[in-house]
Formats: sequence, C-alpha cells, structure tokens
Amino acid sequence: MEKQNRSGTAGKVIRCKAAVCRNPGEPLVIEEIMVDPPKAWEIRIKILCTSLCHSDVTFWKISIGPFALFPRIFGHEAVGVVESVGEHVEEFQEGDMVVPVFRPNCRECRDCKSQKGNGCSIFGDKLVAEMPRDGTSRFKGMNGETLHHFLSVSSFSEYTVVDVVHVVKISSEFPAEKACLLSCGVSSGIGAAWKVADIEEGSTVAIFGLGAVGLAVAEGARLRGASKIIGVDLNQEKFEIGKKFGVSEFINPATCGEKKVIKEITDGGVDYSFECIGLASLMEEAFNSSRANWGKTVILGVEMHNTPLAINTYFLLRGRTVTGCFFGGLKAKSDIPILAQKYLHKEINLDGFITHEVNFQDINKAFDLLLEGKSLRCIIWMD
Amino acid sequence: MEKQNRSGTAGKVIRCKAAVCRNPGEPLVIEEIMVDPPKAWEIRIKILCTSLCHSDVTFWKISIGPFALFPRIFGHEAVGVVESVGEHVEEFQEGDMVVPVFRPNCRECRDCKSQKGNGCSIFGDKLVAEMPRDGTSRFKGMNGETLHHFLSVSSFSEYTVVDVVHVVKISSEFPAEKACLLSCGVSSGIGAAWKVADIEEGSTVAIFGLGAVGLAVAEGARLRGASKIIGVDLNQEKFEIGKKFGVSEFINPATCGEKKVIKEITDGGVDYSFECIGLASLMEEAFNSSRANWGKTVILGVEMHNTPLAINTYFLLRGRTVTGCFFGGLKAKSDIPILAQKYLHKEINLDGFITHEVNFQDINKAFDLLLEGKSLRCIIWMD
Ligand SMILES: NC(=O)c1ccc[n+]([C@@H]2O[C@H](COP(=O)([O-])OP(=O)(O)OC[C@H]3O[C@@H](n4cnc5c(N)ncnc54)[C@H](O)[C@@H]3O)[C@@H](O)[C@H]2O)c1
Ligand SMILES: NC(=O)c1ccc[n+]([C@@H]2O[C@H](COP(=O)([O-])OP(=O)(O)OC[C@H]3O[C@@H](n4cnc5c(N)ncnc54)[C@H](O)[C@@H]3O)[C@@H](O)[C@H]2O)c1
Ligand SMILES: [Zn+2]
Ligand SMILES: [Zn+2]
Ligand SMILES: [Zn+2]
Ligand SMILES: [Zn+2]
Repeated sequence: MEKQNRSGTAGKVIRCKAAVCRNPGEPLVIEEIMVDPPKAWEIRIKILCTSLCHSDVTFWKISIGPFALFPRIFGHEAVGVVESVGEHVEEFQEGDMVVPVFRPNCRECRDCKSQKGNGCSIFGDKLVAEMPRDGTSRFKGMNGETLHHFLSVSSFSEYTVVDVVHVVKISSEFPAEKACLLSCGVSSGIGAAWKVADIEEGSTVAIFGLGAVGLAVAEGARLRGASKIIGVDLNQEKFEIGKKFGVSEFINPATCGEKKVIKEITDGGVDYSFECIGLASLMEEAFNSSRANWGKTVILGVEMHNTPLAINTYFLLRGRTVTGCFFGGLKAKSDIPILAQKYLHKEINLDGFITHEVNFQDINKAFDLLLEGKSLRCIIWMD
Repeated sequence: MEKQNRSGTAGKVIRCKAAVCRNPGEPLVIEEIMVDPPKAWEIRIKILCTSLCHSDVTFWKISIGPFALFPRIFGHEAVGVVESVGEHVEEFQEGDMVVPVFRPNCRECRDCKSQKGNGCSIFGDKLVAEMPRDGTSRFKGMNGETLHHFLSVSSFSEYTVVDVVHVVKISSEFPAEKACLLSCGVSSGIGAAWKVADIEEGSTVAIFGLGAVGLAVAEGARLRGASKIIGVDLNQEKFEIGKKFGVSEFINPATCGEKKVIKEITDGGVDYSFECIGLASLMEEAFNSSRANWGKTVILGVEMHNTPLAINTYFLLRGRTVTGCFFGGLKAKSDIPILAQKYLHKEINLDGFITHEVNFQDINKAFDLLLEGKSLRCIIWMD
C-alpha cells in the first residue's frame, strides 16, 4: 500500500478543475474532471503555473488525422509540486517542486546514456500517446468519458499525472514562473544555440521567428558572443523587444526579401540560421540564408501542416547542413538544473520572456495574446 | 616573355587530339583541336591518363538550361605533366606531375584558410564557367569555333589549360593511374567518410550506390572500424565487388524495401548514411534510414534532374542531420598529398577501383562500361 500523503489524497481519485479542449480550435472550457492516482513510475503533480507554447496552438488547431485527439487537456510548459507518487518511485517525493518535460529522459537506455542527442530509445516521442507505459489516460470527465493527454504532460489542469521519465526536480526556492519557462520554449531555444549549433564567438546568426523560442536562441547566441544576430519576423513589434535579447538587425519579410538582405549584410550568408516558426517555406529560407562551406540550419519549429522541407541539393553539396531538435537537444534531467543554476547566477535572462500573467480561468486570454503576437510567454496561475 | 620549354611549345597554340562532345548524350568524337597557351596563373597540362566519373555522364546528358553547353570537352578525373606555365606561376614548373581538381583551393581566402569546409570564397564553384579568372575558353576547333570547358578541368584532351587554384602537385614516382583516382571520385568518397561524417569506430553505415564513390566511402568507413557497412544498389554485381571494400551487408531495393531492412538490422537506423547515386528519392531514403538522435546523412550524389530533396521535418526534429559535400570536404592542396602518402604506406586501397583500361580513341567504351554498371573506374590512357 502506498504511503499516505499530508492531504490524505494519495491513492484516491482527485476532483479538480482543468481547461478541456472539446473541439479543435475552440476556446478551452474550464471543467471539473477526475484525475486518477499515479500508477507505478508515475507521479501526480499539483500544477503551480503553466504557460502557453506555440506547439499547444499547433496541435489545438489540428482537426484531422492521428494527432487530432479530443476531448484533450493541452499544456506542456509548467511547474508544480508532487502531490503523491506511484509504486517504485524513488526519485521524487511529496512536496518536491518539479518541472515536467515533454521529451523523455530515462537515463538508462543507449540514447540517454550517450553524449549525443536527447531522445530516449525506450520511451521514444509519441506525440499522440497517453501515459507512456500503458497507453491509457489518467483523466476522466465527470460523466466518465476519457480525456486525452498531450505530450505526456497535460498541464492545463490543477492536477496531472506524469511519468517519472518526464519530470525533473528543481529547488523549491526557485521562482515558480521562471521554472515554468525552463519546461519547454526557453530551454529549447538556448539548447539549440548552445548544444545543437554550438555557436562560436564572432559567428553570424539569423533567427526566423521572434517568439519566446526564437528569442531564447538569440539569448543563447548573445551569450556565446555572436557578432550579428539577425531577427526575421512579420510582426514589427517583435523588433523592439528583440533588442533586449541581443537581436542586432531586423528584417521584416513583408517589406523586403529576407534572403538577399541576409546574404548582403553577412557577406554570403550566416554561419547559423534557426527556424522558430513552424513553416517549411521559412525553413527553406533559413537554409538558403546560411553560408556555403559551414553554414548550419537548425529547425526548431513544429511544421503546422506537416509539409516536408524541400531543399536544393546543390546547396547541400556546397557544404551546408540542416538539423533539428526537440527541447534544444537538452537532456532534461541533467540540463535543466544547469540552466536553473545559470539563472540564479544571473548568467541567463529569463525574466524578459514573461510578458503577461493571467489566472487559470482566463486561460483563453493566453491563446489570444499569443495568436495576436502580443505575448512571448503568458504565465497562467492556478488559483 | 615566358621561359621556353624543352619541347619548344611554350607560348604557342598546341594542336592535339581531344574527345569532343558535340551534342548532349552523343558519343564523343576524337577531333583535332587547338589549345591556347596558359594565361597568367594558369598552366597547360599534358594529360597522362583520365577516367570517367558519373558527374561527367550527368552533365553530358543535360540538354537544356545553363548547364547544357556544347560543343564541350568533358573529363575532370586525371593526372598529367606540366607542359608550360603562364605568368606569375611559381608553384608549378614544366615537368611537374599534377592532379587537376574541380574544386578550387586558393589558400588565401577566408574559406580556404578556415579549418571548416573546402569551398573557396574567391573562386566559388561555377559549374558552367570557362577559365575561372577571365571566363573565356582556351580550346578552339580547327574552324575556330569555341569549345567549352567542364568543371575547370576538361581532361578528355591530350592537352588542357587549368588555373593554378585547381591543380595539386604530386611526386612523379607516384603511379599515374592511382593519382588519377585521387583527382575526384575516390577522394570524394574517402573524404566524406573521414572529414564530413567523421565516422567513429563501431558505427553503422549505409551507402546508397556502390560505384567508385560509394565504395570509396566504404573503404573510408572500413578503415575507421565501422561495425556494419550496408551497401544498397540495384546492380547485384556490385555486391561481390563491394565485399573487397568492407561492405558487410547488401540490400537490393528491387527485391526488398531497403528502409525497413536497414532499420531492422541496425536496431532503428544507421549512424551514418551516404547517398552516392544522384537521385533525390534515394537521398530521402538515405535520410530516412538514419537513426534518430545523432544519425547523419551525407549527400555526395549530384542530382541528375535538379530535383530538390524533400524531408520530413519531424524526422529532423528527432535529431537527424543532413549535409553534403563536393570533393569529400577535402582541401585539394593539402589533402591530396596526405591521401597519396597513405596509399604509398599501404593504408588505403586504390588498386581495386581500377576495373578497366582503354586507349584514348576508345573513350566511348568507358561510357558504355559505366552506364552498363560494369566498371568502377576505367582508366583512359593518352597515347
Ligand atoms: N523543437 C522544440 O522542441 C520546440 C519547443 C517549443 C516550441 N517549438 C516550436 O517553435 C515555434 C515557435 O514557438 P513560439 O512559442 O516561440 O511561438 P510564437 O508564436 O511565440 O512565435 C512565432 C513567431 O513567428 C512569427 N511568424 C509567424 N509567421 C511568420 C512568417 N511567415 N514569417 C516570419 N515570421 C513569422 C510570429 O510573428 C512570432 O513572432 C513553434 O513552431 C513551436 O511549435 C518547438
Ligand atoms: N560530391 C562530389 O564531389 C562527387 C564526386 C564524384 C561523383 N559524385 C557523384 O556521385 C555519384 C556516384 O558517382 P560514381 O562515379 O560512383 O557513379 P557510378 O555510376 O559508378 O555508381 C552509381 C551506382 O549507383 C547505382 N544506382 C543507380 N541507380 C540506383 C537506384 N535507383 N537505387 C540503387 N542504386 C542505384 C548504380 O548501380 C551504381 O552502382 C554521382 O551522382 C556523381 O555525380 C559526386
Ligand atoms: Zn513547447
Ligand atoms: Zn532513455
Ligand atoms: Zn567526379
Ligand atoms: Zn580560396
């Protein structure tokens, strides 16, 4: 029998509020739901705060195919406190502050043990799956219907159940809303700049899309001493905010051809380009804006329509490289604590990414702000 | 005034034989032509032997667009002896044995000086151009018509003129036909394995296309201690010869789906895949056969129809990389001497690549042999 927790909820179904998405693209509905206790190797987390990443929006809009699973509880950028733990869980205990991460990290498999990459060969990355070990859901509506998980996190709920391979412990002194940022977008951008591109001092960089992810790439590039950080965005308002993250040049493709301009101001193309939008056409532009011989393009954007990336093979033969990463190539369990330390030592800027804060019942406002291009990250506080 | 050479030909037009391609896809015609003396920074080379690379075949077939330039003198894999040198040439002198290379290497520009890549930012890679400095041809037919150059080399001629940035000196004791191999295909394959992929011991490798280029990749992988070298080819005869170069598994896509098979025998995909055919569809297969997290695909094939490579962006996000290279990422002036040394020290196998030898007047036989999949490299000896 599992150990009882302080609130007496361990082992019992919890009734709480969640923002349920009933149909693709529709506003979320705050509903009462039931959250099962964690099974073996799972923990149940009381969410402190969560935020909206564009990947939620992308999947929220998908209305056909295997990714269109409704009703569903979205949300994957969050921080919370462990309410209770399932069998065999030794890494976590009640009261621990934790960051859930969509990218699994079991630390046992060949891939997790390797220095390269950040995938897990045991837990893979099943974007449509429910709980990774048994494929079932821990959420039910009050009428008993199954509510689907999202990215193994589902943080748009007061309580959620997450597998231990998807959770990282963090010091409870760490500011919750900053920990939330490390859960996806900001870590993904900084990791892409540091681990995947491994930008050197003096490099030229182009970033397509200046949302939180793109600006986190800029922050990473700035800290590595990039000589030029070119931001490309259709939203003119991103240019002013970009300067705070080191963006030194701005290009609005609506008013000029970004490719030619980048080649001109960098004498033939950038050393590193990043796509942080999620459109194959912009991935191609990013690739074309990289220089021959060593130009490297890193794809972070999740393609909105699953369109393939088409590239000129002759440009590849001239020595360009394209790669991509989930979660910035970071291994969640070892790298999130490093980023947290760097924040505490004032070596990285996290504060600037939080542009808005709302209460849980106003979660749809976070969607509006992101879709209107007004926010970077909007922190959604549980009550 | 230039120094006169032993044969008294310096500074004069030379009349000699060349295999001229008058129309796309037609057999070459051995004709008498006129070869101008080298201008400044150029040398005139008496070709000893040359061989046919698939890139000659690809451009020989192109009948429309800017790449279709006829009449033309093809050939870019060769070795020869310097007949005379133009003004300002100090690196070479009459009698030097030299290997021409289609990839320029000026050693002065930012790219040539960098440790990365092997392009030249001054001389670029103008596949359609004549002589790189003044854009004119050094070849004329007997009626005065211009004959076009190919890849800055044009070795299907008894004499050719090449810019110094496209030539590497080699010891005159080195066997000519082995030096010829280092001029393009074999160097490209070994370089791709060593410099571009940088294959580690124990890696799994898949090679699409077992011509000289693909088998040179195999040779490079074998010498690096790859644990599995999977060869993919439609030509069943390539399987037996592949074994000599370390190919350990063979897949004929005509009889089985190569992608699934590769994933099975490598537990999820290879560490490194190489495309050495020149078809975007096979480049995509090579990419799909690489493993998540660190799989790297290196494109060597020159796409025959200029079709773009289309890749699933989600596969990229899982940590795969695609890159490409001309001339195996090697810097001709410094790396060809290294390969030559390794051959002399019996550290690389070059002999196995020479499957046929013909006299210059039988040059069309070299085309037949390559197109029928019978040869790896056919050495074409000048008389
Ligand atoms: N790979 C990962 O691990 C990972 C992690 C988090 C987010 N993402 C993805 O990264 C992307 C960015 O996420 P975000 O949260 O920063 O999004 P966001 O909406 O905050 O930012 C996107 C930016 O792109 C700009 N943009 C949109 N269309 C454009 C166009 N055609 N040309 C130029 N600019 C354009 C927008 O104005 C906006 O500034 C999304 O695709 C998201 O799914 C990936
Ligand atoms: N990047 C470079 O610097 C560089 C240098 C030399 C050659 N190349 C290119 O490399 C490629 C190979 O050159 P090569 O001289 O070795 O050619 P090759 O003709 O000797 O070899 C090509 C091989 O591919 C096989 N093949 C053809 N179609 C196939 C298919 N659909 N599926 C599987 N196998 C198939 C053929 O049977 C043959 O064995 C060509 O595209 C050439 O232009 C590139
Ligand atoms: Zn995210
Ligand atoms: Zn793992
Ligand atoms: Zn070649
Ligand atoms: Zn150069």
